[in-house]
Amino acid sequence: MTADVDLAFDDNDYLPAVAQDAEDGDVLMLAYVTRKALERTRETGLAHYYSRSREELWQKGETSGNVQHVEEIRVDCDGDALLYLIGQEGGACHTGYRSCFHRTIDGEFVGTQVFDPDDVYE
Amino acid sequence: MTADVDLAFDDNDYLPAVAQDAEDGDVLMLAYVTRKALERTRETGLAHYYSRSREELWQKGETSGNVQHVEEIRVDCDGDALLYLIGQEGGACHTGYRSCFHRTIDGEFVGTQVFDPDDVYE
Repeated sequence: MTADVDLAFDDNDYLPAVAQDAEDGDVLMLAYVTRKALERTRETGLAHYYSRSREELWQKGETSGNVQHVEEIRVDCDGDALLYLIGQEGGACHTGYRSCFHRTIDGEFVGTQVFDPDDVYE
Repeated sequence: MTADVDLAFDDNDYLPAVAQDAEDGDVLMLAYVTRKALERTRETGLAHYYSRSREELWQKGETSGNVQHVEEIRVDCDGDALLYLIGQEGGACHTGYRSCFHRTIDGEFVGTQVFDPDDVYE
């Protein structure tokens, strides 16, 4: 028997969630979830997040088709961060790169561009 | 020629940083950095973070010896999250697990315990 782990949402009711490719282990993005976004993710098996700037729940890939199939959700020791182990359709980044982490801090591009954003977003 | 990427620290001057094992790709922890913590990380090659609860800069492994050798720092597309690619001494988690993400959201333990915290922390 297991029980849901207690989660420590922050003062704004957000938790950071890291999306990692379940196959090759690439870290693809970091975004935030609310309880509702997490609930929707678990119900549908598709990654949902909460946009702090737009102040709305969103499903990853709703516009682009680049959805994330969530295979497992992990919680860290303090319950204040999540790890989504996912299967990524297309690329995770709105710039067309597979991962949002496609630059080093020195500005070198190290990732792979997998689609042309002009073809995907209006 | 490359130039440092612009970083979008939040209102509290924090950025989340994900530590990923550079060898096997395991996501080991998520913590926060300030500019100072990031600067110290780049100067020393050892991961430094900022504890929001203790309100202080800390070097990972300062007490336990489980330091993180930072091989590369990546920045996400929006400049509001970091990825530390690291070599981890011992385990990353204060509970003795290799990764802080050693539980599923259902409460199942899926990680590996690599040390006994009683031997390491007073």
